[in-house]
Amino acid sequence: MILLFGFGGVGRTYAELLYERTGLRLCAVFDSGGGIAKKEGFTSDEVRQLLKTPRGAVVKSGVGRAAALDDALDMCQVVVDVSPPNYETAEPALSLYRRALSKGLAVVTANKAPLALAFRELAHRRLYYKATVMAGTPLVDLLMGLPPQKVLRVRGILNGSTNYIMTRVYKDGVPFEKAVEEARELGILEPDPRLDLEGLDPAAKLVIIANTLGVSLALRGVIRRPLAPLGPVTRYLATLDLETPRASVEPARLTEEDPIHVDYTMNAVEITTDVNTILIKGKGAGRKETAYVLLNDTLKALAH
Amino acid sequence: MILLFGFGGVGRTYAELLYERTGLRLCAVFDSGGGIAKKEGFTSDEVRQLLKTPRGAVVKSGVGRAAALDDALDMCQVVVDVSPPNYETAEPALSLYRRALSKGLAVVTANKAPLALAFRELAHRRLYYKATVMAGTPLVDLLMGLPPQKVLRVRGILNGSTNYIMTRVYKDGVPFEKAVEEARELGILEPDPRLDLEGLDPAAKLVIIANTLGVSLALRGVIRRPLAPLGPVTRYLATLDLETPRASVEPARLTEEDPIHVDYTMNAVEITTDVNTILIKGKGAGRKETAYVLLNDTLKALAH
Repeated sequence: MILLFGFGGVGRTYAELLYERTGLRLCAVFDSGGGIAKKEGFTSDEVRQLLKTPRGAVVKSGVGRAAALDDALDMCQVVVDVSPPNYETAEPALSLYRRALSKGLAVVTANKAPLALAFRELAHRRLYYKATVMAGTPLVDLLMGLPPQKVLRVRGILNGSTNYIMTRVYKDGVPFEKAVEEARELGILEPDPRLDLEGLDPAAKLVIIANTLGVSLALRGVIRRPLAPLGPVTRYLATLDLETPRASVEPARLTEEDPIHVDYTMNAVEITTDVNTILIKGKGAGRKETAYVLLNDTLKALAH
Repeated sequence: MILLFGFGGVGRTYAELLYERTGLRLCAVFDSGGGIAKKEGFTSDEVRQLLKTPRGAVVKSGVGRAAALDDALDMCQVVVDVSPPNYETAEPALSLYRRALSKGLAVVTANKAPLALAFRELAHRRLYYKATVMAGTPLVDLLMGLPPQKVLRVRGILNGSTNYIMTRVYKDGVPFEKAVEEARELGILEPDPRLDLEGLDPAAKLVIIANTLGVSLALRGVIRRPLAPLGPVTRYLATLDLETPRASVEPARLTEEDPIHVDYTMNAVEITTDVNTILIKGKGAGRKETAYVLLNDTLKALAH
């Protein structure tokens, strides 16, 4: 039984796929307007009803009964967090994780903020977070398979929307401001576009990658420069030197042959270890991609 | 406490790294000549002594006492199999796994044969096998992070030694027979070179990939054509269509731009799902790379 915290695009797609592809049920859904719960879990019909409900209005949907978060936690085994990131305090998600984990629930999340601000505290085997980096590409699972192979360096294009913008500018000749507008219209820009354009989103991903590899790195420790066009093959480059450690997100010109040179919303990561160099490319954005990876983590959480 | 089954190149490197990088100990080592065991685990000095012992002679090393496999199993928590693959019967590894798993031990393996011949029987949460595919690149962990994302197709260069041979032939102008000889001298060819040159090794990897993704595929179900030079960018291409399912290993000409076109001992895999296309490149061979991934699986096995 799953408590879904957040009911926007990814949350709705997750709910649909959960009922379509698994035998699992939601027992509670929370959005910005409050939450509803049902001990036996919502039926498919009730979820269809919820999917027709406008944003922020699940309590008015007529499905289930209005519930407090603490009561809902007692009905569920897994909390799935798809609420928007809050890079100031990580709230309300951070408090929710603390309560859920202390009650013995598992937490599955696509929300980077709590991990970016409090990874060490949350580092816990019942926290599943591969949806926070590279959407449908399970990079985090691959990273966890590396130690004690020693990772020296990670370089990557970790933000799909800014990579889309730079590809439109230099590959397709679209002016920068217009490309930003396009990204907004496509729904691939964060509601607060500074998270993308000033690099907070890829910086949070570097923090998650570093800590996953056992290297302590704080969000304020990542050097960030805002996105700006510099000329052909400008990309918003995220770099992590794990030996210093030093982390940065900045616009940079790549060569055409650079293995991490990818176009549009694709992401690419190059991992250099003491014995290997690994390259991974895959989609870095998308509701369905993110929802699938959340589902994989949900199934893992329930199997352990 | 670990039982090491096989004490050739990878086994010895594993033993060294185990003592160097973790606090764990070997309690038993078996090679083709028999096995030795010690309840408290071997000391670093004893392992150094073992590393000086010729192949097949651990029982004559003067370390520990000669032991039967069943007695050794009772002293250990994890079996690590680095014995050579036997694609006829998968023995003696297959019987060892059955005994170890039934006694509640975990099995960590780099040996493809038992999985290629009996995946369904062995599919068990206490069997860890990411060292069987792509050496130091944890592809298997990434694959396990995909479902219920639906994988439609996998294409790849999964055999480092034949890719080395074909790169030498067409990139460096070396005659085919000489390139084969070089691969043998470098120690990257299997002791029975037909496993590489007739595609049994990449076919076994396809079987492991398919079954990891929940699709039943048997080794005899993989179409295999022997390696042969066809002209520039000839690669030994492994293809898996998961919908039919159909699997093949055959020489094929790739375009220069093909994302899975890699040189020398590199491996590359392209995974097409219903919502994503993922490309992974990394080393596909190497003692140290394989030993590291075995160590990661050992640590995982002991944590669960």
